[in-house]
Amino acid sequence: MVKQERAARTRRVILSAAARIFEERGYQAATVNEILASAGVTKGALYFHFPSKEHLAEGVLHAQDLDVPIPERACKIQQMVDTVVLHAHRLQTDPMVRAGVRLSLDQQAQGLDRSGPFLRWSEVGTQLLSEAKAQGELLPHVTPTETADVLVGAFAGIQAMSQALTNYQDLPTRVSALLRHILPSVVVPSVLTAVDLTPTRGADVYTELQTLHPDLPTLHPERQPAAVS
Amino acid sequence: MVKQERAARTRRVILSAAARIFEERGYQAATVNEILASAGVTKGALYFHFPSKEHLAEGVLHAQDLDVPIPERACKIQQMVDTVVLHAHRLQTDPMVRAGVRLSLDQQAQGLDRSGPFLRWSEVGTQLLSEAKAQGELLPHVTPTETADVLVGAFAGIQAMSQALTNYQDLPTRVSALLRHILPSVVVPSVLTAVDLTPTRGADVYTELQTLHPDLPTLHPERQPAAVS
Repeated sequence: MVKQERAARTRRVILSAAARIFEERGYQAATVNEILASAGVTKGALYFHFPSKEHLAEGVLHAQDLDVPIPERACKIQQMVDTVVLHAHRLQTDPMVRAGVRLSLDQQAQGLDRSGPFLRWSEVGTQLLSEAKAQGELLPHVTPTETADVLVGAFAGIQAMSQALTNYQDLPTRVSALLRHILPSVVVPSVLTAVDLTPTRGADVYTELQTLHPDLPTLHPERQPAAVS
Repeated sequence: MVKQERAARTRRVILSAAARIFEERGYQAATVNEILASAGVTKGALYFHFPSKEHLAEGVLHAQDLDVPIPERACKIQQMVDTVVLHAHRLQTDPMVRAGVRLSLDQQAQGLDRSGPFLRWSEVGTQLLSEAKAQGELLPHVTPTETADVLVGAFAGIQAMSQALTNYQDLPTRVSALLRHILPSVVVPSVLTAVDLTPTRGADVYTELQTLHPDLPTLHPERQPAAVS
């Protein structure tokens, strides 16, 4: 058991180093030796967990998946909104999540299959929207897969724009604006008025998760007061 | 005059080479010498047009701006839609436009200000939406800058997702879906029903532009039949 914990810790240390090096150098230019030096673990330990650079990148890409699920909400659209704004909050505060998202958008990363995160998020969205549809929360013409794909794609670009313009400071405001533009085409009016889309919602959901899972790390937002977007 | 034409041609040759090398190697890893070798021009000619790697990248980033404007439409929302779908069409068919968009999303490109294209597109969108608002085409609560920013950011991610999943084959379908999800929150119903959002619209607008500007190159789409999204 202690041994397992130590292995998990080593794995995390290696992934953090990989995230750092991929961010600094880009996937293409980064080398396993640089990651090894930065992690300060033995070559054996690194190759035991990650046999290649591609495996290291896959590990970083997976880090944006959330280990602990959002609590079930009666309103499935609120649960979907909470999933989106929590992801924005983690992106703003967790360097590992950030590295994963950047890697999925690294169009120079040859030989790396970057479709994974898009497909996984699209699946999460389709699932929640299908449940919302079954509960009568959606307008009749809505196709859950199509709407999920629009949301996932749009989110990827909104975060890139926020990073390029304000280094993520205005991310919650931009994500809230995106949802306010898309939800009215998707959700029945009675649900729409009840959904909480305030820009602080992501931080609130993370705090709620921490009370349920006390082992979740406290994220230290690097953000300053949100810029006017 | 002939001299000017030759200079313009040399400039284009250098930019094409820069686009190719940036795509292959990423901004960070690419060197001016590689671009020089690929362009096959003299060192003097290259430095005359572009004094540094950053200038070369700026040139490629600017290549996504359209030299010839979309014809004025009576309906400003249609003009905005045409601007968006034309950009998608150029992205799908013109390697130089593609290189510019990728460069704006290259989060590893340190020291390169990638905010330019976001800000320029945002300005174009704000202008068209303000005109639409003045003509009564928008719902009363809409703020042109906010909606323009949502569209620009969302578009950037939609194209990245299309590239990662289908190498741009399904881009027109995805862009059409994005617009169908956002416009109902922005546009008055009578305008909405009149707007043409068919996925072939971008190619049609480009053909229209070619009849007005016969010197525009014929783009050869690399696309195969659009995948089902």
